[in-house]
Amino acid sequence: MSKDDYGELPMVGSVPYEPSGHDRVNLSDIANKYKDTSPPEEEGGPKVVFRAAVANARVQSAKLAFLMFRQGLETIQAVVGASDTLSRQMVKFSGSIPAESMVLVHGTVKKPMEPVKSATIGHLEIHVMKLYIIAKAEIPLPMQVEDAESPLPKEGASEEQATDEGRPLVMLNTRLNNRVIDLRGRHNQAIFAIKDGVCALFQEYLREHNFIGVQTPKLLGAASEGGSNVFPVQYFSTKAFLAQSPQLYKQSLVAARFERVFEIGPIFRAENSNTARHLTEFTGLDLEMAFEEDYHEVVTLLEGLMLHVFNGLQSRYSKETELVRRIYGVEDFKLPEAGKVPRIPFSEGIKLLRGAGVELGEYDDLR
Amino acid sequence: MSKDDYGELPMVGSVPYEPSGHDRVNLSDIANKYKDTSPPEEEGGPKVVFRAAVANARVQSAKLAFLMFRQGLETIQAVVGASDTLSRQMVKFSGSIPAESMVLVHGTVKKPMEPVKSATIGHLEIHVMKLYIIAKAEIPLPMQVEDAESPLPKEGASEEQATDEGRPLVMLNTRLNNRVIDLRGRHNQAIFAIKDGVCALFQEYLREHNFIGVQTPKLLGAASEGGSNVFPVQYFSTKAFLAQSPQLYKQSLVAARFERVFEIGPIFRAENSNTARHLTEFTGLDLEMAFEEDYHEVVTLLEGLMLHVFNGLQSRYSKETELVRRIYGVEDFKLPEAGKVPRIPFSEGIKLLRGAGVELGEYDDLR
Repeated sequence: MSKDDYGELPMVGSVPYEPSGHDRVNLSDIANKYKDTSPPEEEGGPKVVFRAAVANARVQSAKLAFLMFRQGLETIQAVVGASDTLSRQMVKFSGSIPAESMVLVHGTVKKPMEPVKSATIGHLEIHVMKLYIIAKAEIPLPMQVEDAESPLPKEGASEEQATDEGRPLVMLNTRLNNRVIDLRGRHNQAIFAIKDGVCALFQEYLREHNFIGVQTPKLLGAASEGGSNVFPVQYFSTKAFLAQSPQLYKQSLVAARFERVFEIGPIFRAENSNTARHLTEFTGLDLEMAFEEDYHEVVTLLEGLMLHVFNGLQSRYSKETELVRRIYGVEDFKLPEAGKVPRIPFSEGIKLLRGAGVELGEYDDLR
Repeated sequence: MSKDDYGELPMVGSVPYEPSGHDRVNLSDIANKYKDTSPPEEEGGPKVVFRAAVANARVQSAKLAFLMFRQGLETIQAVVGASDTLSRQMVKFSGSIPAESMVLVHGTVKKPMEPVKSATIGHLEIHVMKLYIIAKAEIPLPMQVEDAESPLPKEGASEEQATDEGRPLVMLNTRLNNRVIDLRGRHNQAIFAIKDGVCALFQEYLREHNFIGVQTPKLLGAASEGGSNVFPVQYFSTKAFLAQSPQLYKQSLVAARFERVFEIGPIFRAENSNTARHLTEFTGLDLEMAFEEDYHEVVTLLEGLMLHVFNGLQSRYSKETELVRRIYGVEDFKLPEAGKVPRIPFSEGIKLLRGAGVELGEYDDLR
């Protein structure tokens, strides 16, 4: 009984491939499907097959184990209960799977007795029929993914301290030394999704407005912008320099009648300042355009672009932005309506800053 | 008479900005508007205002000048004829504008007596009412844009030779020393548009298939892929290396449960081979994905991706691809239908190559 229904799968490719014929599902699709109606109860509920990570597993009794499965930003609770067709050995195996292992699950979808508060998909649970380990995680892991789902500790904090929720503090060093585990944190998954959302929205708006995306050289024969803060590269028997900005190339392209160009690409700055505001490498979102009569056309375009990006984040990435806001304690952004974005003339900006106690000249940079 | 209707405009920003209130048009929009019906003849035809480059200008007589205007990939002929309201001085001024100058044109749209073969918009011409130079080109230019609209001369060719069309050959050195003029060539404008088309189609398909775009580090603390062919960078008091591939980062992200990632970014290879197939810097289009059961899922995705890109180029960039094909004498690509792309097993590929006289082992790379 149950013998072939659980265990560790052989490595993919180590045995000849035979398609299983099972369609594998996404947990978020299942969650949406049974959002307003409960799953039907015939034959124990709808059967599903899916791949997921084990967030945690525990043996409740000889006959019962609970697991939390994770897929993307979603988690769902699963029950493994001994029965005529499910052995106690399988219960023990299931409840002992190390956290962060990847598993293949066959099960039925049911409405739980009580909503599962600890799962993002609280209105459903999985009753496991078969459970296979695709890749088993090591024990113990150097850090727990859930512990990483918090802001970086402040300077001076120590590993012995705990967060307000009583979880261990995970220091930057531990995170960087185990980046693959750190990146599994949902806040990191969300941050990466939002980052790509900003790029996608930026590209979308600009291409709609007749911009062409370009890739300008990053290895230059001469230092740009005067030569300070530039990384030199050994280029065979001579020297090259890493681009600090696509400025010259963007302007050349506009002069070459491209009219409107943009670029998303790496920028290199040899600024030896170890602050969160100085990075030696970052991704630049750049644009350059010819205007017809006045530079206010550029300001208008930038205004539309910014609104498109921020409104797009609110409408398409609300799950991700809410998650990041909750973890970092950041408020939602409030956006003006299109056409109602305030424009502050430079001289008034200087006045406002001086009023706020900043000392600067009439024509100083407003950084 | 005509005094304020022509001349050189002051530099933008050098005089206080007063909006003209004129909507400026695109030549391609005008071409489409009067594609099937001729422009109405009342009041001399519809009035238009637009900014364009002068491809060439000539004085036909004291009373008549012809110009060719260019905007993007489109050209249109313009007539400047002396009349009660247009002075002979203005005719002379107009016919003498140096090629590649940027101008502001007020005129009416008319159907020409005969289609203008030398213009891409041959079914219309512009009757100029006002003509202002925004930026005047130097005379003589180091190269003519039209002469650059041809493939690079073969090695050993000299500047004294002419093309089959009797135009001067423009050598690579001249082009690179005057890249802004070279890039004005329509084939270059088309190549850049196609390049961005490939990126846009790549991103579009992958985002639709749940991929996230990422930007991985280009400055590495250690050399990737074994350390050969890597550019070292002076990183303050230590050394860094330019990334030869996002491979390690893509794989880390998949292991960090991102499941599907892609990147468009620069790749650096310190290969000192001066051929058109070896570049020290190029743009890589990369993807990495987890699969459910078998790597053929990846092949299927790549197949769909390639068809999406090539079909998209045919449907959305036909003007650009036709132009490049015509100049470089390249045939149109023939695409298999979706699902009918042949898959050649590796062992058969080796057989095919051996049959064609290539010497290689059973498991050699197929490069």
